[in-house]
Amino acid sequence: MKLLQEKIQKEGIVLSEEVLKVDSFLNHQVDPHLMQAIGMEFAERFRADNITKILTIESSGIAPSVMAGLELGVPVIFARKRASLTLNNNLLSAEVKSFTKKETNTISVSGDFISSGDKLLIIDDFLANGQAALGLLDIAEKAGAEVAGIGIVIEKGFQQGGRLLRDRGVRVESLAIVDGLQDGRVTFRKEENTL
Amino acid sequence: MKLLQEKIQKEGIVLSEEVLKVDSFLNHQVDPHLMQAIGMEFAERFRADNITKILTIESSGIAPSVMAGLELGVPVIFARKRASLTLNNNLLSAEVKSFTKKETNTISVSGDFISSGDKLLIIDDFLANGQAALGLLDIAEKAGAEVAGIGIVIEKGFQQGGRLLRDRGVRVESLAIVDGLQDGRVTFRKEENTL
Repeated sequence: MKLLQEKIQKEGIVLSEEVLKVDSFLNHQVDPHLMQAIGMEFAERFRADNITKILTIESSGIAPSVMAGLELGVPVIFARKRASLTLNNNLLSAEVKSFTKKETNTISVSGDFISSGDKLLIIDDFLANGQAALGLLDIAEKAGAEVAGIGIVIEKGFQQGGRLLRDRGVRVESLAIVDGLQDGRVTFRKEENTL
Repeated sequence: MKLLQEKIQKEGIVLSEEVLKVDSFLNHQVDPHLMQAIGMEFAERFRADNITKILTIESSGIAPSVMAGLELGVPVIFARKRASLTLNNNLLSAEVKSFTKKETNTISVSGDFISSGDKLLIIDDFLANGQAALGLLDIAEKAGAEVAGIGIVIEKGFQQGGRLLRDRGVRVESLAIVDGLQDGRVTFRKEENTL
């Protein structure tokens, strides 16, 4: 997605060969027009799949997901990373390992909102080691729901998540795939969409 | 806001005389069309105020804020409730007391994205004791930014937050004000907008 690649080139900050900071439009400050364009792109790619719900994870997955949900006319559910006062029964949970923070978190979704009749589009902001996506797939499976695919805003193509998911036969649609963060520069994979 | 009141009546679950659960369209599952209507309503009420940025707090403030930002053509910044790997310098922070969880959290915003030239619209999902709103006002003040007002999706009018903020001269626009949660029923204040 050209608009997204341009935004990353212009505003992304390469913190190391592994970390790309996009706090100015996705992870802290959010650009609503870009989110709308991203939502429309996800909707376009999954329009034929009869998606019934979008499943994402707080917090940075929410903005692109809500825009995609608006475009597809379906609700969005965001998995919680921490316990909530009112989210306390009929929970579907999964463990998510964080390599960077070296900790394991439990993510949860209420079983009230996903069922075996659902066809889910999973959306997340970043795909790195794939642990969050695997956790969301795990939750979908526990609910007995079908997963049409995973929409990712920025995939770090040099980390294992993309391969891991695609090897499992999961359809992954990444709007930008970063292949390298060498010398402070962002290098994109030529093909945006590699199934 | 009639559409919102109807949604609360239809789907809101009264857990106690103090707790209203709206997990089916705002706090866990999110209704994108309702969020768009809410965003448009906030935009309408603050259209004349030359807002430059929207300041909100993760996670449930994000969806209505991004829709309002889209309508007003301004970026959204969401305050973080926990430390982030990449959010680590030039931080503006505030303490937020939670009465229900009986704990105090630090919320943070990067000073890179708010400055003295900004005129902020603060948006949040719920207004109860007003502690989150006060924290966001504190952050705005630390940045030297002006605050045009606070937009709230659901105000619990029987708790002190609304009075606290309005007594300080802050403009508070609540799209629905719940005056009571007695006998499992939601009672709304007649006037939706009490300055």
